Amino acid sequence: MRIAIIGFGSVGRGVAEVITAKDTGLTVTAIADSKSGIIDHSGLDIGAILKNKKSTGMCGTPEITVSDIISSDAYDVLVEVSPTNAETGEPALGYIREALAGGKHVVTSNKGPVSLKFEELHALAAENNVMLRYEATVCGAIPLMHTIEHGIAGNKISRLYGVFNGTCNYILTRMAEEGLTYKQALLEARELGYAEADPTYDVKGIDAAIKLVILANAVWGMKKSLADVDIIGIDDVTSAAIALAEREDQTIRLIGEIDPANEILRVSPTIIPKSHPLVVRDTLNAVTIETDLAGEITLIGKGAGSSETASAIIADLLFIRDCYDRRD
Amino acid sequence: MRIAIIGFGSVGRGVAEVITAKDTGLTVTAIADSKSGIIDHSGLDIGAILKNKKSTGMCGTPEITVSDIISSDAYDVLVEVSPTNAETGEPALGYIREALAGGKHVVTSNKGPVSLKFEELHALAAENNVMLRYEATVCGAIPLMHTIEHGIAGNKISRLYGVFNGTCNYILTRMAEEGLTYKQALLEARELGYAEADPTYDVKGIDAAIKLVILANAVWGMKKSLADVDIIGIDDVTSAAIALAEREDQTIRLIGEIDPANEILRVSPTIIPKSHPLVVRDTLNAVTIETDLAGEITLIGKGAGSSETASAIIADLLFIRDCYDRRD
Repeated sequence: MRIAIIGFGSVGRGVAEVITAKDTGLTVTAIADSKSGIIDHSGLDIGAILKNKKSTGMCGTPEITVSDIISSDAYDVLVEVSPTNAETGEPALGYIREALAGGKHVVTSNKGPVSLKFEELHALAAENNVMLRYEATVCGAIPLMHTIEHGIAGNKISRLYGVFNGTCNYILTRMAEEGLTYKQALLEARELGYAEADPTYDVKGIDAAIKLVILANAVWGMKKSLADVDIIGIDDVTSAAIALAEREDQTIRLIGEIDPANEILRVSPTIIPKSHPLVVRDTLNAVTIETDLAGEITLIGKGAGSSETASAIIADLLFIRDCYDRRD
Repeated sequence: MRIAIIGFGSVGRGVAEVITAKDTGLTVTAIADSKSGIIDHSGLDIGAILKNKKSTGMCGTPEITVSDIISSDAYDVLVEVSPTNAETGEPALGYIREALAGGKHVVTSNKGPVSLKFEELHALAAENNVMLRYEATVCGAIPLMHTIEHGIAGNKISRLYGVFNGTCNYILTRMAEEGLTYKQALLEARELGYAEADPTYDVKGIDAAIKLVILANAVWGMKKSLADVDIIGIDDVTSAAIALAEREDQTIRLIGEIDPANEILRVSPTIIPKSHPLVVRDTLNAVTIETDLAGEITLIGKGAGSSETASAIIADLLFIRDCYDRRD
């Protein structure tokens, strides 16, 4: 199965490295980023390209563009990991549309296109008899989509809730365990690289809300957008409030929740017993799935990181290889 | 896809009910237990059979035996859930062998055959180009095998450890939280139906060890048997020892661990920080998977129960339907 990688930052490079290092039966035949591209129908020399990228900043030649690759016949699956605006979904959205319309499978880590245009992209994939997979868009290394689609297939999912943002979880963990103020904990998160210079996207609950939108649309077909999510961030949580909760063996976490029967779609700081499986430490993510047969299933793992994102992308690629590609 | 169910206790009945109640594309065409059997190539009336079973104790007629069904052409997948001796694996082992040799897929919840004869059964399935699936044998409703095979496919798994026995976890939870003695907690577990009259199999760590054997063989091809597992049960754990651990924000759980690089395959009471994701309450199971790309993934859920076991079996059936059956 031939792979084209669009976007050659840390995630794209990680995917290329894993495919090369492991016996996956996958071949990378095309790579491009905004500056350059390279195609080889018989398989690229990833080692040489990584070296070139490191020394020159280029993965290929400026003559070969992303468009050249997407419209080419050099690949079966597009790995779409280009830097993308989460609000417009571009340029990833255009890339994904073109690849699906051209009868190519797509695996992406970009939340924007999947949260904004789930229905359209899903229909486009079905029309063209290909798969669109996006495990990496929700909770990084946690195989949440695989679990829902296959691991607990046949279950009715009544509710889904959890910790969807590692930055907020780190800040709240530090406030609870060390009695830090919100500002102190945020500063620490920034120093450790867990929070960006402008932390709005994380601490205001937007990142978690976008993940809820993806899940609401993918799991229940709810046709929701970001505007439909009730969002309260963690920036008003005080260490006094956390201390009060801790005295009762509880704590505060930023919980995202989807409960279709009760029309709940919200992200908010929530008091939760410390013994609850969702109370995880530091930057971990955790999700509980309520089902009719299996009861509650909780998944815990790393929600971010380039290796973790590559892990989710590789699992999607291998799923297409094992469960779709050989059907032809 | 046509399903034959062998064994019509609570799990077999649960599987039949779920297939009937949900739009799965599956049809139950044959059912048998030790006393009777029934076949209908166009699909059985499950409602009528359940009613009959309840009033007469029979699912069909004594003239139709398990052997008749297994050797028939009335089914594509055998759901093997007959009451089976975990030490000999019989009668399930014989049933599974015959179905696989006859070119039928097999889904089972019986630990015996899978822990005793993994290599043989695995090879037999491969020879006959069919699948043997056994999600229900390890940790009930937790989709552990699906996660390892697909959710985190492409990852190298270096170590796997967790709480594999709900009875022991219940007893240790009660000893920790209420200061009960081992005997008091065991009595309580018995009254609630969590422990059997003879609790040896659970409290001596044998049940957990059998699950480790299945995982060691399935994940790493380690060719292990029960005799290879170092086992210490929970029957010598004192409430004083737990209280000591609790004073340091730790507790004691029965942890099963597979660490191939360090030749570790053991079940033993282990001191573990109370904040660790594996510290779950009551009868829950929890497993942590250490990987090269995804980091640590922890799965928590119900490890036993007929609905939970049915959930795992249904997921296996749907996986065969989606990812195998339509390849033909």
